[in-house]
Parts: sequence; structure tokens; C-alpha cells
Amino acid sequence: MSAIAEVKALAFDVFGTVVNWRTGITEEGRAFGREKGIDVDWEAFADAWRGRYQPSMSRVREGEIPWTNLDSLHRASLDALLEEFAVTGLDEREKDHLNRAWHRLPPWPDSVEGLTRLKRRYVIATLSNGNVALLVNMAKNAGLPWDAVLGAEVARHYKPQPQAYLVTAELLGLAPHECMLVAAHNDDLVAAGTLGFRTAFVPRPSEYGPDQKTDLEAEHEFDLVAASFVDLAEQLGC
Amino acid sequence: MSAIAEVKALAFDVFGTVVNWRTGITEEGRAFGREKGIDVDWEAFADAWRGRYQPSMSRVREGEIPWTNLDSLHRASLDALLEEFAVTGLDEREKDHLNRAWHRLPPWPDSVEGLTRLKRRYVIATLSNGNVALLVNMAKNAGLPWDAVLGAEVARHYKPQPQAYLVTAELLGLAPHECMLVAAHNDDLVAAGTLGFRTAFVPRPSEYGPDQKTDLEAEHEFDLVAASFVDLAEQLGC
Repeated sequence: MSAIAEVKALAFDVFGTVVNWRTGITEEGRAFGREKGIDVDWEAFADAWRGRYQPSMSRVREGEIPWTNLDSLHRASLDALLEEFAVTGLDEREKDHLNRAWHRLPPWPDSVEGLTRLKRRYVIATLSNGNVALLVNMAKNAGLPWDAVLGAEVARHYKPQPQAYLVTAELLGLAPHECMLVAAHNDDLVAAGTLGFRTAFVPRPSEYGPDQKTDLEAEHEFDLVAASFVDLAEQLGC
Repeated sequence: MSAIAEVKALAFDVFGTVVNWRTGITEEGRAFGREKGIDVDWEAFADAWRGRYQPSMSRVREGEIPWTNLDSLHRASLDALLEEFAVTGLDEREKDHLNRAWHRLPPWPDSVEGLTRLKRRYVIATLSNGNVALLVNMAKNAGLPWDAVLGAEVARHYKPQPQAYLVTAELLGLAPHECMLVAAHNDDLVAAGTLGFRTAFVPRPSEYGPDQKTDLEAEHEFDLVAASFVDLAEQLGC
């Protein structure tokens, strides 16, 4: 049996791979700004918020702070950014609404169709650093038909720590080689592949905007490379 | 706002409440027995298997053995029962297939329609002692449209231990009073209600077969009592 024929579950990176966080946060910010009369470069705000993503998780990975889920990390970053962008006068309810923009991110145009087709033959699950509530709310809002919402929070370890991948496979009752990580990020796929996961690279060349320089193509030997989730479904015969 | 108006997620007990384990195990056993030429009273076998369910979890709850998921507890019970029922000569693959009959249980006739309607307005999640893989496979097989598969395994505590309920609410990003447990079992609902969950009793008077004596009606003050999941959807305006 070929390596791909043994795959029973597809585990998906979410931010950037399934949903378009940059456009989502920018548009939520603009709508919020118009309503509240706040004049901010929301594209720069989105990039700065995402810029704090890896550093905020690193504090958890390195044990500097105890386990903290992504909603809480996003919120700490937001509080710092509001100060940096000189946005004042927001109450708790408004800050919480803005923080939950991550729960309302839009899918890429091919995501829902591709996932729906892939779900016919495979278990499809999240393997995201997002917390369960964020991913569940996002799925309901965007129509993402997950079989299971797993990843960092249930493993209490952020990718690329091995536990995030291994606990997800274990909860699905599968060996790593029966799982395929689908991601738009080379480093995520390399981390999963090292643990025995199969790997599928789907580039999202505008994830970081028009001047994106990284993750434009597969930089390693992955099991599959697909142009979109629909192409992935085609390649997997779904 | 009324207590029910604050509910954002419905968390479901699964075995007996959503699926009919007795008929499912009996029919799987009969088909297996015909194929293998094994003559066993499969209804008695199903009852005996389920009879070992609470005692097997008690060993985990009381710390007699470390965390062990339900597939593994089911398997240990199966191995003992095969001896008790004098079934011999099964190989590992056959025993594993039989053990996974719990992954293939049929829903009650109203389950899929009711859940599909309830999902329009609420987050619907499992809050089951079943492990994630069992529940994910069951959902794919039976068409149960869960938003999230949670419960004992992610909490690493079996109901009625408080952590099973509280961790599920926490992972959904909700306070206990924003969650409603839906169950066919009085004791499960009492345990959840004590922790602040809202409660809905849906009787399944043939769960234990034609002579069922327990859980025929609500024995406590629950927030809702419904005749079926479709009735529950009606009562909740879905």
C-alpha cells in the first residue's frame, strides 16, 4: 500500500491555510473603526496583531507563563496594540468583540467546497494553535464541516511542539502515518513530517498580503502539493 | 433574560441518549456470530458488556488504574466476556472489529433530524464518556452533525466527575449556565445541574430493552423535558 493509501484523517492548519486572517481582521477593524469613529490603518493593525502571534506562544512554549489559550494571548496582544496605535476609550465589551474577530475569519474561496469533498472519504480535523471555542465559532460562521476540532488546546502544547501533533493523532485513534497535515506553511509540515505524519502543502501566496515573500512554494519533499483544497480533493480521488 | 435564553451550547450525553447501544451491539453481534459460526445470546452479551461499563470507569475514577479511554475499557470487558460466553478462536483483528461495534451504533430515529435543527441556533457538542475517536467514527457513520466532540477523554475524567462537565464548558468558552446537558439519565443531569449547567431530560424508555425500570421519567426538576430531540428543537424554537 502506498503511504497515501494508509491515510485515514486529514488534519488542517487553520490560520492562513483554511481562513484568510489578514483580510478578515482588516475588514473587521475597518467596520469597527467606522462605527466607533476610530481612524487606524487596519491593515497595519492586522499585521502587527499577527506579528505578536509567534512571540506570544513562545512564552508558553518556553514555560515563561503557564498554559494560556489563544483567545487570551490574542487579547493580551490586542491590549498592547491598542496602546501602540493610540486607540483609547474602548470598554470591555468592545475589546472582547474586537478580539473575537478571530472567531469570524472568512474562508479562502476553495475551503468549504474542498473540505466538504474531502470529508466524504477522510476524517477532517483541525490541528491548529487556535483554541476550541475560537475554532468552533469560526466553523459555524464560515460553514467549515469539521469532524473534530483538535490541536494545541486539547494537547496543551503549541505547534511546532511535538505533543500538539501527537496528541491530535492519538485522540483520533490513529498512528501518525495515518494522518496527513495540510498546511500552507513549510515549517509546520516539516515538524509534522518528522513525527511520521504525511504532508500536503497548499500555498496561500497572499496570506501575508501582496508582498508575501515566504511559503510561496514547497521547500521540502512533501507527500502532496496542491493548488487549492479542491485540487487536493481531486488528487485524493474525493 | 430567562435561564434558557442564556444557553449557547447544548452538550449531549451519547450512549442511550443519541444512539441505541443495545440494538446496535446485539445486531453487530448477531451478524458477527453468523459469519463466524458463533452461537451466543447476543442480547445478553450486549447487556453484560454494558453492565461492565460503570465498574470499568470506576476503576479510573477511583485512581485504581491510570487514565484509560473507553475503547480500551470496552476491550478489556470484551476479553473477559468472550471467556464468560465461551467464545474462543478469535484473532486480534476480529476482536478489534467487534470492539469497534461501539463506533457504529445506530442513532434513535429522531436524533439526526433533531440535532440538525438544534445546530442552527446552538453549538451542539458531545459530553460523553466515549473517547474522541469512537465518537468521531460514530458521527461519520450515523450522520451526527456535531460542532465539537468533547467530554471525558479531553477532560481525562469520567462523568459524573465534575471535571468532565466543567472542562467541556471551558473548552467551548462558556460558563456552565450557558451550557445545557441533554441526557436520558437522571443522575447525569443531576451532576451537571449541581455545577450550574441547564438540563434537558429526553427519556429513552427502551434503552435497556422492553423491561426497562429506570430513567422512564424525570425524577428531578430539570429545565426542560422533551419527548424526543425533535420535540426539544420545537421547544427551543429551532
